[in-house]
Amino acid sequence: MSTTLRSMRLSASRCSPLRAGPSSASGTLRLAGARYSSSTAQDPMTGELAKLPDIEPSLLEITRTQQPKRPPPPSSLVFGHTFTDHMLTVPWQILEGWGKPKIQPYGPLAVEPSATVFHYAHCLFEGLKAYRDTNGKVTLFRPDMNMKRMNTSAERIAMPTFNGEAMVELMKELVRMDKHWIPDQPGYSLYIRPTMIGTQPALGIAPPKEALLFVICSPVGPYYPQGFKPVALYGTTEYTRASPGGIGAYKLGANYAAGVAAQKAAAQKGYVQNLWLQGPEHHITEVGTMNAFVVFKRSDGSVELVTPPLDGIILPGVTRDSVLALAREHSAGKIRVPELTDKLVVSERPVTMKEVKEAAQKGDLVEFFGTGTAAVISPVDRIGYLGEDVHIPTGPDGMGPISRPLWKHLTGIQTGAIPHPWAVEV
Amino acid sequence: MSTTLRSMRLSASRCSPLRAGPSSASGTLRLAGARYSSSTAQDPMTGELAKLPDIEPSLLEITRTQQPKRPPPPSSLVFGHTFTDHMLTVPWQILEGWGKPKIQPYGPLAVEPSATVFHYAHCLFEGLKAYRDTNGKVTLFRPDMNMKRMNTSAERIAMPTFNGEAMVELMKELVRMDKHWIPDQPGYSLYIRPTMIGTQPALGIAPPKEALLFVICSPVGPYYPQGFKPVALYGTTEYTRASPGGIGAYKLGANYAAGVAAQKAAAQKGYVQNLWLQGPEHHITEVGTMNAFVVFKRSDGSVELVTPPLDGIILPGVTRDSVLALAREHSAGKIRVPELTDKLVVSERPVTMKEVKEAAQKGDLVEFFGTGTAAVISPVDRIGYLGEDVHIPTGPDGMGPISRPLWKHLTGIQTGAIPHPWAVEV
Repeated sequence: MSTTLRSMRLSASRCSPLRAGPSSASGTLRLAGARYSSSTAQDPMTGELAKLPDIEPSLLEITRTQQPKRPPPPSSLVFGHTFTDHMLTVPWQILEGWGKPKIQPYGPLAVEPSATVFHYAHCLFEGLKAYRDTNGKVTLFRPDMNMKRMNTSAERIAMPTFNGEAMVELMKELVRMDKHWIPDQPGYSLYIRPTMIGTQPALGIAPPKEALLFVICSPVGPYYPQGFKPVALYGTTEYTRASPGGIGAYKLGANYAAGVAAQKAAAQKGYVQNLWLQGPEHHITEVGTMNAFVVFKRSDGSVELVTPPLDGIILPGVTRDSVLALAREHSAGKIRVPELTDKLVVSERPVTMKEVKEAAQKGDLVEFFGTGTAAVISPVDRIGYLGEDVHIPTGPDGMGPISRPLWKHLTGIQTGAIPHPWAVEV
Repeated sequence: MSTTLRSMRLSASRCSPLRAGPSSASGTLRLAGARYSSSTAQDPMTGELAKLPDIEPSLLEITRTQQPKRPPPPSSLVFGHTFTDHMLTVPWQILEGWGKPKIQPYGPLAVEPSATVFHYAHCLFEGLKAYRDTNGKVTLFRPDMNMKRMNTSAERIAMPTFNGEAMVELMKELVRMDKHWIPDQPGYSLYIRPTMIGTQPALGIAPPKEALLFVICSPVGPYYPQGFKPVALYGTTEYTRASPGGIGAYKLGANYAAGVAAQKAAAQKGYVQNLWLQGPEHHITEVGTMNAFVVFKRSDGSVELVTPPLDGIILPGVTRDSVLALAREHSAGKIRVPELTDKLVVSERPVTMKEVKEAAQKGDLVEFFGTGTAAVISPVDRIGYLGEDVHIPTGPDGMGPISRPLWKHLTGIQTGAIPHPWAVEV
């Protein structure tokens, strides 16, 4: 069933037999087990180390599923529970570089119990969405940003980096194959999850010598199917998400396992999510797994949109960057975001919970919201802080005067209603 | 080939069909895929939540390998690269509790690509050793401590806890089956690696609803086959391992991926390992992945053995605890550790790099060493700190006057030469 796609442009890369071989009879992709040889990395005559192969889209091998699934009714979708028919895999070995990319039927990975990922959390991921517009055109939203960040994450835990543009090409192919999984209803999209794991079957604590990059896709509905529902946050001071010199600025699995306890504690206290407050001054850093934005009314009549700076403990979110960019271009008069005030000032600066609380007391707190790929914008109406609740205004639609127009404009770009280079056609 | 071991004492636990079913034809253990039902957790008549089954050794099912491997020559062993013939697995689901323990042929795990462990680092582990004494008796060293810590780790990332005594029983059975893998030479042992991973096949960030506990075993040689070789450490101030409110005190995979960059940077600067220095005062916390001990000469003629206190960022090491306990009992006159000075004072207190450097300059620094299960005691002869090297005395055998007798006594207990309740017969 295996066919190699496209006429091959001859690649200079020297790919040796791959550890991630063809799917076995049971549909399980087998990884690891054999030993690597050093022959491909070092020239036996000159002793020179060869430049190892990067990810090469022209080598893509496609195995189509023989049992295509029927996409479930859109209304039944739960975030990240349903996956499409195919997945993309690219294996890596330290002495051979990146191997042959494969698109194959979605199914379990066979991983040695000694694999790095199970013991030392060598795992990292990205999240982006494919949207289908009313004309049927499918686009990815800023995939270059995700690939850039994925490489930064990989470097932080001594895992392999790769050509991001090549990965975008491969993801496009995967989305083209499974695009019928994007439900044909407004607000729906295909959530794409590129993931990298360490697969070396050895227990020594060191940079893994083998890895697997894989991409899976999940059809998802609007985060708020009945309109925006503002959430209540619990201001977490008992746990820390990140610290200077740590990994908070990287999209590593390790940040998420460590954060679940705070999320659980917030839920037990009756809040939907937690707000990470950092250090003795309770600096606002992130909202659960989203970036945080606050809007203040200022005495000169202007409105300030604030998000904490990328100081090493904040995740550089793609939605964060997009909201900042649109707001700044609007402020500078370069674009016009409809319904957004002209008196907008955009700040990346530290902001403490004390400042938020005092602004709320004085009536100067306009909005508080989180941004992220899954929800895009998530308004907040209440923050539990040191035993008291700080209340935050929200409009009848759940949003506020700054988040509403920014959300409309951003989702307009994502869904193709507003033409923009951020939307990349597959 | 599947046989159920032991006459069953009837268990009150209600085990339903397990997700981790029998090994497939390919030798791959399959996990996840089906949905769980709520019927076993809630009584349909009374609505009461039943107490879910804990780990139950009497339910153990054993499938012996049909292809036993030949243990390699001891001298060829590399730490954590060779594994024995069998492994132990116990699956868990939120609505059904712990399922049937199985000992089966060692082999890959089939895990869904959406499993929690690949994305959010829901993984944690333990490390302990089985030793064989000269009479052939096999013992585990303080396994209760490992099971206690494993439960603490699990709780920190909202994963299931379990009956540690039951797990010790199961590990004993596994070690009994594979004890011929312990090389019959002094200094060799069987390294046992209990591991827990989140296996729920869904991308929402939350406590995983499915998990797998597994145990694998690796025959290992002495850490220093040619006698002790002191290591040079690089004092890391660029990265932090842990912070208050974080996960440093737990044996979670997430601590290790995050630490590899510091280890790599130390190696690039010509040091063997890194020394984690915390905060503006550069408090000594850990040596790579070991606990840190410093020995000072004091003006009153006594010798102070210092290790940083368990203040929330230090891993509570079993070897750390054992060294402290032996040293304290010796100081108090309860036991006599041969060759160890009577003028020993034992302190768990903060210690800074400044104090170590000043003591070295004054000639008051007696020793610096790391402790951990793999190396037991690892002496240090040099620390690179802010551009200078601090030199530490070591004896001709690589050790010092405090570490040498403590190491002899501790390994005497571990190998059965000194009878002690810490050595638990399998």
